[in-house]
Amino acid sequence: MRIILASGSPRRRELIQQAGIPAKICPARGKEVSTCKDPRDYAADLARHKAEEVAEREREIPGNYCVIGADTIVVSNRTILGKPRDREDARTILRSLQGHGHEVMTGVCLLYRKGEEERALSFTEVSQVTVCPMTEEEIGRYVSTGEADDKAGAYGIQGAFGIYIAKIEGDYYNIVGLPIARLYHTMRDAGLLPES
Amino acid sequence: MRIILASGSPRRRELIQQAGIPAKICPARGKEVSTCKDPRDYAADLARHKAEEVAEREREIPGNYCVIGADTIVVSNRTILGKPRDREDARTILRSLQGHGHEVMTGVCLLYRKGEEERALSFTEVSQVTVCPMTEEEIGRYVSTGEADDKAGAYGIQGAFGIYIAKIEGDYYNIVGLPIARLYHTMRDAGLLPES
Repeated sequence: MRIILASGSPRRRELIQQAGIPAKICPARGKEVSTCKDPRDYAADLARHKAEEVAEREREIPGNYCVIGADTIVVSNRTILGKPRDREDARTILRSLQGHGHEVMTGVCLLYRKGEEERALSFTEVSQVTVCPMTEEEIGRYVSTGEADDKAGAYGIQGAFGIYIAKIEGDYYNIVGLPIARLYHTMRDAGLLPES
Repeated sequence: MRIILASGSPRRRELIQQAGIPAKICPARGKEVSTCKDPRDYAADLARHKAEEVAEREREIPGNYCVIGADTIVVSNRTILGKPRDREDARTILRSLQGHGHEVMTGVCLLYRKGEEERALSFTEVSQVTVCPMTEEEIGRYVSTGEADDKAGAYGIQGAFGIYIAKIEGDYYNIVGLPIARLYHTMRDAGLLPES
């Protein structure tokens, strides 16, 4: 079984390693779009597009494979927050997270061939996050570190933003970018992991 | 203000760095004991002993200082779980975490001098953890990695055990060993952090 992670994110690369899943990294290159309105479906749809792009190449090669696609979004006040356009936008996004909780969702899609079987398995894992009240100075200081630039919701829980996370509910690693507990159990139960 | 972390744990060292708190590391050497029955008080008491040991030396030196002591315990079925005695004990502890949630508590004690003021500030942060059902094989495989050996509750959430964490509620970093959000806000509000 060739396991391929269809993501270029260094965070997901570390997480799949932490999970002990022996995956090759092969980032999807396309610009994914989805017309889904429901955030859960939206995240799963983007994950599927990424997995599909990489699976197209894998299907040409004989033998079993499993391609893992993943996409993480932040949902606050029923709005899907993407990556900030610039630092002013990052500050606006962080201000909008104040005073109420928000959700972080990672859609995961597994496309695999196992013997005669060719299948797709999808799920979206949801975690709740509550951010501490932040002063304008704290928002400005955090954005100026540059950590917000490439992150959905304009923060990374695993970095300097950790001091502003009042609490979470759910899988922490899902917020970082890959729900490794559910991914491991899904792959284990589908017989996609090597025997150890 | 000299800030000193009275802990030898590499995990706490990384966390205080992540929090952006400019601390010197100076581990307490004594073997801490507490007679407190309540787990929250027990964790805070051990943290205070660690901080006291290091503060004794700091008091001799003129100028402001803040010593941070911390101690993390796992509480399951009203029992405080320490570090495992050996690998058989580690397996027994992991079996005992199955089927119900448990709590991870980090007691934190700040002993500081700021001008004329000499004070102590203590708190215990509590996070809830739910572990996935594990097979005997999974328990054995995890224990054989050696990661359980030096950890209260026989697991480290930040390593290979991540795939067995169904969910948490509270501060993730509290489970790793230092509640950086509450520590940062407590120090900020007491005027113990450098102006940035």
